[in-house]
Order: sequence, then structure tokens, then C-alpha cells
Amino acid sequence: MFDRLALIGVGLIGSSIAHAVRKHGLASEIVATARSAETRETVARLGLADRVTETAAEAVEGADLIILCAPVGVFSALGAEIGPKLAPGAILTDVGSVKSAVVNDLSPHLPDHAHLVPGHPVAGTEESGPEAGFAELFEDRWCILTPPAGTDTKATDTLKDFWEALGSRVEIMEPGHHDLVLAITSHVPHLIAYNIVGTAADLEEVTQSEVIKFSAGGFRDFTRIAASDPTMWRDVFLNNKDAVLEMLGRFSEDLTALQRAIRWDDGDALYTLFSRTREIRRNIVEAGQDSPAPDFGRTHGQDD
Amino acid sequence: MFDRLALIGVGLIGSSIAHAVRKHGLASEIVATARSAETRETVARLGLADRVTETAAEAVEGADLIILCAPVGVFSALGAEIGPKLAPGAILTDVGSVKSAVVNDLSPHLPDHAHLVPGHPVAGTEESGPEAGFAELFEDRWCILTPPAGTDTKATDTLKDFWEALGSRVEIMEPGHHDLVLAITSHVPHLIAYNIVGTAADLEEVTQSEVIKFSAGGFRDFTRIAASDPTMWRDVFLNNKDAVLEMLGRFSEDLTALQRAIRWDDGDALYTLFSRTREIRRNIVEAGQDSPAPDFGRTHGQDD
Repeated sequence: MFDRLALIGVGLIGSSIAHAVRKHGLASEIVATARSAETRETVARLGLADRVTETAAEAVEGADLIILCAPVGVFSALGAEIGPKLAPGAILTDVGSVKSAVVNDLSPHLPDHAHLVPGHPVAGTEESGPEAGFAELFEDRWCILTPPAGTDTKATDTLKDFWEALGSRVEIMEPGHHDLVLAITSHVPHLIAYNIVGTAADLEEVTQSEVIKFSAGGFRDFTRIAASDPTMWRDVFLNNKDAVLEMLGRFSEDLTALQRAIRWDDGDALYTLFSRTREIRRNIVEAGQDSPAPDFGRTHGQDD
Repeated sequence: MFDRLALIGVGLIGSSIAHAVRKHGLASEIVATARSAETRETVARLGLADRVTETAAEAVEGADLIILCAPVGVFSALGAEIGPKLAPGAILTDVGSVKSAVVNDLSPHLPDHAHLVPGHPVAGTEESGPEAGFAELFEDRWCILTPPAGTDTKATDTLKDFWEALGSRVEIMEPGHHDLVLAITSHVPHLIAYNIVGTAADLEEVTQSEVIKFSAGGFRDFTRIAASDPTMWRDVFLNNKDAVLEMLGRFSEDLTALQRAIRWDDGDALYTLFSRTREIRRNIVEAGQDSPAPDFGRTHGQDD
């Protein structure tokens, strides 16, 4: 499908792309680079790429597909570095969790002969780094592409074929709408998970050891998300500020109403909400977006 | 260990106790009852008990261990019903998620010849009802016992042995402290999970179908908890009001600080929190309270 794929940044997503591209034979050559020498060495040791370069500028030379898999906070600098080196007809994409900021940061550096089609595979685990990747990560997950107005539709179609070959379903969306949707389905959930884990850690009346011992009451679910990559998530919040603040405002407003219902013994209000939310879970499981097994399929007993 | 175990209420926890008691041979006879005729029929059909009675008063007759597995909101009425029927030396316990309210609701009805040792197995799944139970639910989980001051230590020891025989580890705690610990490790996590699922359902700019499709970005984790039993959780919040409001106040305060950090581009504050929370996850996994597998061990690809 591609002659040369350049991966800029090789963490969980970058390494999963490398595994999946190899598995499905989608590129003749994979060239990879990463900012830290340690990551580059790991990539070479694991054989994730055919070639590892020291700089992004070298990596993109002659590549027909370039995927930025670094935290979005460095995209503007990356764009300036690689823009002049992009080959004619090259498709530049990324896997960042925000999209308006990515369009703004990369567009100014794009030569006329290359195509910018930002992307976001909605998939991941709490692990990070080049050793965390696996080929199946994108299977049955959605990948959102947000080509800016005027993008060559052939480039978008080619990238769509690429993600479908990795096992994903693809949706085309306007960047601003993407940022709003992901603010509620991903960014605010991460923020409140990080927040409650922080709140629990700071308590004086309850020890950290108690928080850990009795975490199976619900808390442990939040700690998984709150173990996600700190740099990546810092950059997400700084680069999707408006949508996150908007959704966070609604969340807090609703939470205040719940708080009030508890204070005033309004059991009906609580029951009504608690019944309504079950259906959404059912729909998610039916849509194949989560495991139908109780407790995410966590093992109990011997295997635990 | 016991001659006759009476289970009052047979949902996820009650049916799991029945399975586990059978598996480990801990009672010669299991008598069960439930408020709804439908549940009683299911219990009989599944053979979860040796005998199914229509009322709680009948169920407890001659039982040496009585476990209340109904929502805590009905405990006061249940206590009035069964108190006069409790056999000499009987141990009355429960599995409710709040403990001060349980002590207050049950103590007035307890005859001098019986023992009240409230309990809380910190275990569960998002499923509910008598068909959801399984014998391994309590293995390697903690069960907290909160005997009121003056309780016969032999009764507490016997109940401790019982839970250990089911595979649990047991901790003795003061009821008020239990309620504070569980407010942060279970109640507030449930409340904010219910809340964000409600917030997402109410949006106009983002469709419900989008919320479902792109839930793998984090949101789906919250929907599992928000699919828990509505009656049980309504009663938890109404019966642990002070501790929940206290912990919720701290959560909201911390969230407001995070919101401010995002608004003012304070990346360092975000990064500091996001790095700190990873360690708690590691500790929970090391303590055997969650799966070490990425993504809770959810399957990816073919099995999905």
C-alpha cells in the first residue's frame, strides 16, 4: 500500500502501528525516529522498523506516509522541521487526541505538494512506550479522520483504506466536532479519573493503604485510566481547552445537582438517573465497543 | 460451620454467597427469601437454596447465620420483622455498602440472645440479580466487619472464619471509619461515573450514537460502574450522606483546581498530578486488587 512509512515517535500507538503494518504487509519499508535515544535503541532492538533515524527530518525523506505519534505539544516544532522535507504526494497524518490544534499547528508548514489528513485512532491501553504495542490494538475500534476543507479526497481515501486494513472502522469528521465529541468520551473521563485518584491520595482520614486495599469497590477502575501517559495527557488538555472546559462545566453542574439530591434525600432523582445510565452501557456492548463479560472480563479466583 | 444459613435477599451478592457456601460446604442448609415472587422463583429454579420462604420472618427461624443481602434502605423494616424470630446465639450480618446506618437500623431490633456483626464484602460486578452470582466473587477480595462496641468477640471471630472460608481477607473496622473509606473508594467513584454518563446522554452537540461509537477513549470504563443496580446505589447515597458529601466536596475542590490549571495553561500542575497517580495504580496491582494485564485484560481483535 505504501513504499515507505515514516513513524515520528514510537510509543504505545506508534509501536502498535508498526506491528500491525508488518502483520498486514502495508508498507515496503518502515523508518522510525523518536526524540529519546533510549526509545530509538528499543525500537532498533525490537526490530519495529527497518531503519531508525536520529531526526524527524531524516525519517520523512522519501516517505509516502508520515504518521506523527508524538505528544501533540511538539507538533508545531515537528511541522517546521519536516515540512520542507516532505516528498511530492506524501500524506502527513497523526494519531493525536485533539484535532483543531493539530490542523493549526501543522498546516502552516505543509508544502503544496503534500497532503495533511489528521487522524485519531480511538484505542489504547494504560501502558505506554515502544514495548507496549501490539498489532490488534486497532481492530474493531474507530479511527476518526479530520481532513481540513480542501484536502485532496484521494489522500483521505487512501488513509481510510490504510486504517481499515489495520482493522479499524473509519469516520470522517470536522476537527472542531471531533474535539467536542472526544472531550466528553475521553478527555473529561481522563481528567476526573486523574482527579479522584489525586483526591484519594491526599486524604488524611483515610490511609493510602486503605485506599489500595478496598479499591475493588469501584476506585480501581479509575486508576487504570489515571495511569496513562502524563505528557500525552497534559498536551491534550492544553490543546483542547475550550471543549474540555465546556464539558467539564456541564459535568460539574450535573454533579452539583446530584450532590443536592443526596443532601435533600431526593431518592427519586437518584434512582431516575441511575436507571437511565444502564441503557448506554448496553448500547456500548451491543456496538462491540466493550466486552459483554461482567467486570470487563476480569478473572476472579485462581487466575486473579 | 453453620447448621442453617438464612439469606434475606438474593441478588448478585446473595447468590454468590449461596454458590460459595455450597462449594466450600459451609452450611448444612440454606434457606432463602426475597421480596419479589419472581426472584424467589428464580432462586428455586436455580436450586440456590434448600428452601425458599415467602417472608423473612419464616426464613430466619432456627438459623444460626442470617445474612441480609437486600438494599440497605429496607433494613429497618427487616430488623423489625426478623428481630423477634432470631434464635439464641444466632449471628445477624449483612453485606451492605454502608455500615453506621446499618448498625443504627438493626441494633434496636436485636434481642439480647443474638449477635449483630455487620459486614461488607468489597466485591461485585455491574451485573445484578440471582442469576449473576458465582462462587469465586469473594476470592482475594477484602471483607470488612464492623461489630458495634460490646459485640461478642466469638461471634465476630466465627464470621471472620466464614468469610475467610469464602476466600476473602477480613478487616475489622469501626463503622464510621468504614463509611469514610468506602465513600472515597466506592461511593464517590460510582456517583461520578453515573454523573458523567448522564452528562453525556444529555448533550445536544454530540449525539448518543457518537458517545457510544467513540467510548473506547475512556468513557466506556465509566459506563460499567454506571450500570450497577439503581436501588442499591440510591440507598447507599441516602445512607452515607455525610461521608459522601464530605468526599464529594474534596473531589470538586480538586477538580476546580485542575480546571483552573487548564484555563491558565499550567502544564506543570497537570503533569505533576498525572505522574503521581501512576504509582497508586501500580500499588493496587501489586496488592492483588486488580489485574496486571493492560486494559483490565480486555481482549482485542478476534475475541472482541
